[in-house]
Amino acid sequence: MLDKMEFVKPGDIEARSMEIITGELGDTGWKEPELSVVRRCIHTSADFDYNINLKFSKDACKKGIMALRNGADIVTDTRMAMAGINKRRLAEHGGQVHCFIDDETVLREAKERGMTRSAICMERGAAIKKPVIFVIGNAPTALIRLYELVQNGEVKPELVIGVPVGFVNVVESKELFMQADIPWIIAVGRKGGSNVAAAICNALLYYKDEVEF
Amino acid sequence: MLDKMEFVKPGDIEARSMEIITGELGDTGWKEPELSVVRRCIHTSADFDYNINLKFSKDACKKGIMALRNGADIVTDTRMAMAGINKRRLAEHGGQVHCFIDDETVLREAKERGMTRSAICMERGAAIKKPVIFVIGNAPTALIRLYELVQNGEVKPELVIGVPVGFVNVVESKELFMQADIPWIIAVGRKGGSNVAAAICNALLYYKDEVEF
Repeated sequence: MLDKMEFVKPGDIEARSMEIITGELGDTGWKEPELSVVRRCIHTSADFDYNINLKFSKDACKKGIMALRNGADIVTDTRMAMAGINKRRLAEHGGQVHCFIDDETVLREAKERGMTRSAICMERGAAIKKPVIFVIGNAPTALIRLYELVQNGEVKPELVIGVPVGFVNVVESKELFMQADIPWIIAVGRKGGSNVAAAICNALLYYKDEVEF
Repeated sequence: MLDKMEFVKPGDIEARSMEIITGELGDTGWKEPELSVVRRCIHTSADFDYNINLKFSKDACKKGIMALRNGADIVTDTRMAMAGINKRRLAEHGGQVHCFIDDETVLREAKERGMTRSAICMERGAAIKKPVIFVIGNAPTALIRLYELVQNGEVKPELVIGVPVGFVNVVESKELFMQADIPWIIAVGRKGGSNVAAAICNALLYYKDEVEF
């Protein structure tokens, strides 16, 4: 079995993976920086459905990249996404990641108001007094609450990465959010998750080319 | 759009999700505790491929559950899996999670020996002097190195959860490990990842029924 394996040096594994993904994708019509995002989502999941699922509002990637380069913070509803986002790269630009899900005041308030902790986390994020990118990899309730906050003018995110995963109101929450007049990246359908959320952030953080408007 | 949504109380969302998954799966032939593992992998990914991809050596789930209840530690190659595993539940039994990937000595040794950090992490795990479950959600090189350690008699894991994801030697590393004569849970093919790795651990940690041999 070992002799069937391809020899790839440790430092070259990611590049080789991207080469395989690019080859199998063929000509998709994606341009950069969207193509980098699509590829990294497939890289983290081995699921080519992300070639079809991912939707971008106009210039969402460029706007996200610019926001990150200008030091935007990231607010996420999941500890796993927080663990996966390249915080060193983010900090180089002046940003940091926040996940309020384990905050005791969030837990208490969620119970009192009959809401999910994830939804309360979005309110905490909306109170941050600097540019913020919201990254939702778990709970559709967070995406719905964030939509309400946006519509009420209580927050104006630089970008929303809306990739909650699951079966209860996930599809609907994404369709709802795509109506918002702010930059968004959404994986339509049931699929998504913290790995996809982190992958999209990292694709934007790693994007090397100049981004112009 | 909001009026199309199903009203489910925050505390009931997971149960409702599992109900939907069970309904769509239909009669799969899975028995418990394997069924709980399959369902939780689908829950974390919305990908029903895990109904087909997941393979279990004889009594792997039971053995894993018993090991966790007896206080086994978990060693993983990914920070995201570490973030996702229910550490409070694990600690109730006396276990803890280790991820050595950011250890500076691991980085140095990987460079010196021309290996991946993930592979060196398995060696660190093998040196732990108590029962250990190995959980590989990222790197096939970790699964390959662990196989060598097992074959050389240098470690005898209680269970190996082998769900690396990707395109370079991932399929082959899993086929290789399924030859090992220790308990394993493997997602064959390219798919897997840190979310799936954490989901399998949590399915075993949350399993409520008595497990008998």
